[in-house]
Amino acid sequence: MPAKRVAIIMGSDSDIPAVAPAKKRLDSLGIPVEAHIFSAHRTPAAAAEFSKGARSNGFGVIIAAAGKAAHLAGALAAHTTLPVIGIPIKSSTLDGLDALLSTVQMPSGIPVATVAIDGADNAALLAAQILAVEDSELAGKLQELKDAMGRAAAEKDGALQDRKW
Amino acid sequence: MPAKRVAIIMGSDSDIPAVAPAKKRLDSLGIPVEAHIFSAHRTPAAAAEFSKGARSNGFGVIIAAAGKAAHLAGALAAHTTLPVIGIPIKSSTLDGLDALLSTVQMPSGIPVATVAIDGADNAALLAAQILAVEDSELAGKLQELKDAMGRAAAEKDGALQDRKW
Amino acid sequence: MPAKRVAIIMGSDSDIPAVAPAKKRLDSLGIPVEAHIFSAHRTPAAAAEFSKGARSNGFGVIIAAAGKAAHLAGALAAHTTLPVIGIPIKSSTLDGLDALLSTVQMPSGIPVATVAIDGADNAALLAAQILAVEDSELAGKLQELKDAMGRAAAEKDGALQDRKW
Amino acid sequence: MPAKRVAIIMGSDSDIPAVAPAKKRLDSLGIPVEAHIFSAHRTPAAAAEFSKGARSNGFGVIIAAAGKAAHLAGALAAHTTLPVIGIPIKSSTLDGLDALLSTVQMPSGIPVATVAIDGADNAALLAAQILAVEDSELAGKLQELKDAMGRAAAEKDGALQDRKW
Amino acid sequence: MPAKRVAIIMGSDSDIPAVAPAKKRLDSLGIPVEAHIFSAHRTPAAAAEFSKGARSNGFGVIIAAAGKAAHLAGALAAHTTLPVIGIPIKSSTLDGLDALLSTVQMPSGIPVATVAIDGADNAALLAAQILAVEDSELAGKLQELKDAMGRAAAEKDGALQDRKW
Amino acid sequence: MPAKRVAIIMGSDSDIPAVAPAKKRLDSLGIPVEAHIFSAHRTPAAAAEFSKGARSNGFGVIIAAAGKAAHLAGALAAHTTLPVIGIPIKSSTLDGLDALLSTVQMPSGIPVATVAIDGADNAALLAAQILAVEDSELAGKLQELKDAMGRAAAEKDGALQDRKW
Amino acid sequence: MPAKRVAIIMGSDSDIPAVAPAKKRLDSLGIPVEAHIFSAHRTPAAAAEFSKGARSNGFGVIIAAAGKAAHLAGALAAHTTLPVIGIPIKSSTLDGLDALLSTVQMPSGIPVATVAIDGADNAALLAAQILAVEDSELAGKLQELKDAMGRAAAEKDGALQDRKW
Amino acid sequence: MPAKRVAIIMGSDSDIPAVAPAKKRLDSLGIPVEAHIFSAHRTPAAAAEFSKGARSNGFGVIIAAAGKAAHLAGALAAHTTLPVIGIPIKSSTLDGLDALLSTVQMPSGIPVATVAIDGADNAALLAAQILAVEDSELAGKLQELKDAMGRAAAEKDGALQDRKW
Repeated sequence: MPAKRVAIIMGSDSDIPAVAPAKKRLDSLGIPVEAHIFSAHRTPAAAAEFSKGARSNGFGVIIAAAGKAAHLAGALAAHTTLPVIGIPIKSSTLDGLDALLSTVQMPSGIPVATVAIDGADNAALLAAQILAVEDSELAGKLQELKDAMGRAAAEKDGALQDRKW
Repeated sequence: MPAKRVAIIMGSDSDIPAVAPAKKRLDSLGIPVEAHIFSAHRTPAAAAEFSKGARSNGFGVIIAAAGKAAHLAGALAAHTTLPVIGIPIKSSTLDGLDALLSTVQMPSGIPVATVAIDGADNAALLAAQILAVEDSELAGKLQELKDAMGRAAAEKDGALQDRKW
Repeated sequence: MPAKRVAIIMGSDSDIPAVAPAKKRLDSLGIPVEAHIFSAHRTPAAAAEFSKGARSNGFGVIIAAAGKAAHLAGALAAHTTLPVIGIPIKSSTLDGLDALLSTVQMPSGIPVATVAIDGADNAALLAAQILAVEDSELAGKLQELKDAMGRAAAEKDGALQDRKW
Repeated sequence: MPAKRVAIIMGSDSDIPAVAPAKKRLDSLGIPVEAHIFSAHRTPAAAAEFSKGARSNGFGVIIAAAGKAAHLAGALAAHTTLPVIGIPIKSSTLDGLDALLSTVQMPSGIPVATVAIDGADNAALLAAQILAVEDSELAGKLQELKDAMGRAAAEKDGALQDRKW
Repeated sequence: MPAKRVAIIMGSDSDIPAVAPAKKRLDSLGIPVEAHIFSAHRTPAAAAEFSKGARSNGFGVIIAAAGKAAHLAGALAAHTTLPVIGIPIKSSTLDGLDALLSTVQMPSGIPVATVAIDGADNAALLAAQILAVEDSELAGKLQELKDAMGRAAAEKDGALQDRKW
Repeated sequence: MPAKRVAIIMGSDSDIPAVAPAKKRLDSLGIPVEAHIFSAHRTPAAAAEFSKGARSNGFGVIIAAAGKAAHLAGALAAHTTLPVIGIPIKSSTLDGLDALLSTVQMPSGIPVATVAIDGADNAALLAAQILAVEDSELAGKLQELKDAMGRAAAEKDGALQDRKW
Repeated sequence: MPAKRVAIIMGSDSDIPAVAPAKKRLDSLGIPVEAHIFSAHRTPAAAAEFSKGARSNGFGVIIAAAGKAAHLAGALAAHTTLPVIGIPIKSSTLDGLDALLSTVQMPSGIPVATVAIDGADNAALLAAQILAVEDSELAGKLQELKDAMGRAAAEKDGALQDRKW
Repeated sequence: MPAKRVAIIMGSDSDIPAVAPAKKRLDSLGIPVEAHIFSAHRTPAAAAEFSKGARSNGFGVIIAAAGKAAHLAGALAAHTTLPVIGIPIKSSTLDGLDALLSTVQMPSGIPVATVAIDGADNAALLAAQILAVEDSELAGKLQELKDAMGRAAAEKDGALQDRKW
């Protein structure tokens, strides 16, 4: 089991379905996860406090998911030197463009590692890649996963050859 | 002089030229202004502390200006029940659309009163309108200003009739 | 009860569902509301007349909701020195971007305090914040609401800890 | 000379350079023009009054040019059954997209005949086409102009054949 | 009955539902309509021929509706000095933005009077306004329609006062 | 020398600088070029006639460059079964997005092979690739060009290793 | 039967429905097709190997379909001098704009012939046009198809004349 | 000195000015850097080979910068389980939106940690944060940097209080 945990922070419980693939992926890789609902706007103090203590509390990476004017990832990044991964969540208007720009266009000094809109699975994989920089066992698991993805694609190509369409 | 002051908060001293029209307008209306450079990401604690104390320190409105993933107005709004006015600042890419969406698309519960991209003068007028709700003298000044704008436009229309073009 | 009323103006009765959260919020805060259907294009005189008389008729804030080339908030703002809050309404094309830009990009001199696309609840809260600048009882209610939002988020965070997902 | 005049209305004297090609084109076609600076927001009453009286004052078409949240064309269209042509003007941000959407996305019942961003020359030609529906002499002039454009393009094609490049 | 007819041209029979409000409106105003399916790309010769002959065949205005890279209105405008009204049609991607830009951003010399995305009703009203420049009876009908719209909005405002919401 | 020629069609002589890289590239590959200024809107008949005769006149590919509501490529494609390559040209507003969408979003049945905004060099390379499908000598030249690009990049990488920066 | 085959490459088997019209069209034209699932990111080596060998394996054109950050067409184009046609696929966010820009905005030296979002049928027609440059029989079939499209549109126009609507 | 190196890969030597802040920042933090010019399209084999060997060659993070249809970061991520950071570079059209979407909208399985358009400094800080997960000395340096940024902002706020404006 990796020495570091991953935090998954979301702005609202309505984000759980969009974020669930991240938890599932991290669970499957054996990476310990702690998830919280903190809002940059409704519970800013809790978010700040969590972020400030994250490194000393054994976290290695923070994943933050939010929609609309998505400030959560940036608000967490303001309080830690841990890498913070941002997942822009698509909401009812603008198709996620608002969340994407609010997450990725961070000012100099405070990076947020942004993944695709609704890209929870990739956020988890990126967190795992970060932890795997110094963890060869985890790196091995990620390589296996990558190899498996390749094999699955190759099998689908094989299946296509037999398909009538 | 109005009983309440207006705070102008900007994320960086590079925003001073874009924000200056707000200060100039408030000065001309006799509204006391206090300006600060607080960053949602570099000095979040100072921003939060200012916002929490703003009402008791005699402020009536907070104006916040920021570019890119413009979180400043929202970060201040998280800590106060005063009205917060957001000015999205155009930066070197995306023509201010990133700042506009990051400022205006706030989640339910935490409004930011957003004005146009680089709309510092209107932010000041809106602040004055807010203070004028219960201040008939200030309301009178704003009406005079509105009347003067109308007269100036009418004079320009008159001048156009004499123009060769 | 606050001394001032809030006007909610919408361009069409098809906007009622999108605007209803504003009325509900203001009702719950005990703020008197008067709602009207005025169109900047179909009943411009009624809109102008209402706006001109709004201050003397005891209104403190005007909320205006419209979609597409959303001129309503600006048309009302042209005739009053009261703060005007604009709600851009999403319609069948362009995901509300047209209404957002038509509402927020006001020329210098005539601000509109713009909230998120379909952000009726926030429009009401912003109106309440404006009235609360000089009304400490209402300010107290807004602070309670903010505290309650924080507690609700904290409870959701607690519930998440018990959740299997 | 056509029986009807064309009105060119602009929101500000800063729009004169962008609008000048419309006046030049109408002058060259011998169509009488009357130009005004009326603002939908600063002099709404003057704009409305002009529009209401336009038909009886001998105008056949109204051209309106404005930038940002460009309401001018729509505000004029609200008060007349004459055709209103809108020219979206590019301003310092968003490359004219705000003005385009604010002009073209009019609600049902109040059309604005929108031309390209900064398309003043085409606005004038469209006005002339409208007047030419019942004016065969003017229609002849427009056909000559169209033929001349075709010949000019053909000459440029000829010149290209001789060009070294 | 007006002396001139209106042509409604659409690129495909799949556009009939989107275009039908234009026909309905023109029928209700007693304006004779002739509708055709011509494609700028599939039947360009038929489109060009129709447009070239439109004036002499008694048409006063051409309405053209198309989606995606919507060239139809421009292709018709290339061959006539009659006013051409373009209706951008929303298709399965990009929410009509492609059709809007392809219709409105015409080069200098060849205007297209563009209405809102899917704005067939307004296209018909604009056509009627154009025919009404020299037709006081039709102008009267349009004024009645405008008045009726105003009354309908006023009635809806009245109904809102009685509504529980 | 290839058996087929390439036509470069542009809408205006102002497009010459943007189109010149296409001519230069085709010249350098020894592919015969014939360039014309034809406008979809000002000289539609000339454009159509050229396109109809292009195959029998020995052309293998048509390249078309236009800005704004860029109909030229589509208008040519309507009249030929030759492959038509479209170059969207950036103009003074909207950064080329209007030309890109007007060129690429063609309806089913009439493809335009669209390259990047202002991508004249790539348009020429694509034309050469098309001619090289059945021309192994030209295919060889294109492979040499590709190899040379790779070597140039490798040399730049080598130079970077010696650079102080 | 044409001397060259067409390859259809897609990034995932979830793209089959969007790509199927391309296969259907090529089948109907009697053009031999070989389809594969290769991913620029999951099976980059297989994609590269296929592309490198495509010309010598008898392919004349490669069609590539992908969504989101659609690199597939460009990745194939990097390894061949055959023309590569890109189909941007609409996915769950951003309406295909991401795939369009990722496909069309290729750097100088490596063109991708881009068709409309979800434009599989046009991709196939473009491939056929490319093969038909030197294949007069195929060119004849394409001309028949074009003629048939024109006749179908003309018949629809005829049917419209009989329609009640 | 950290045990791992950071690779900075750019698509062209024209990207050096945009990328230089990343090298400067990493140099100042004492993190060893190796920079290369590899193109996803011109030297795909070199890019792939570098990426495949990066982990065993002692790299901990790869930074990739590219403009337009920016495939470089994704192409590198396809061949490694190291974290790959993407910098979208603004080019001559579309203001960097094309590069942003091409970099961030990666398909599931292959994340790219995307920073702001032209965000080279933040890319370097993110790389340092990743290396600092298991390197407390580097984490200390990053905390000092963060503290220094906060002090600098506070000093600017102090200077603002003395400013006349």
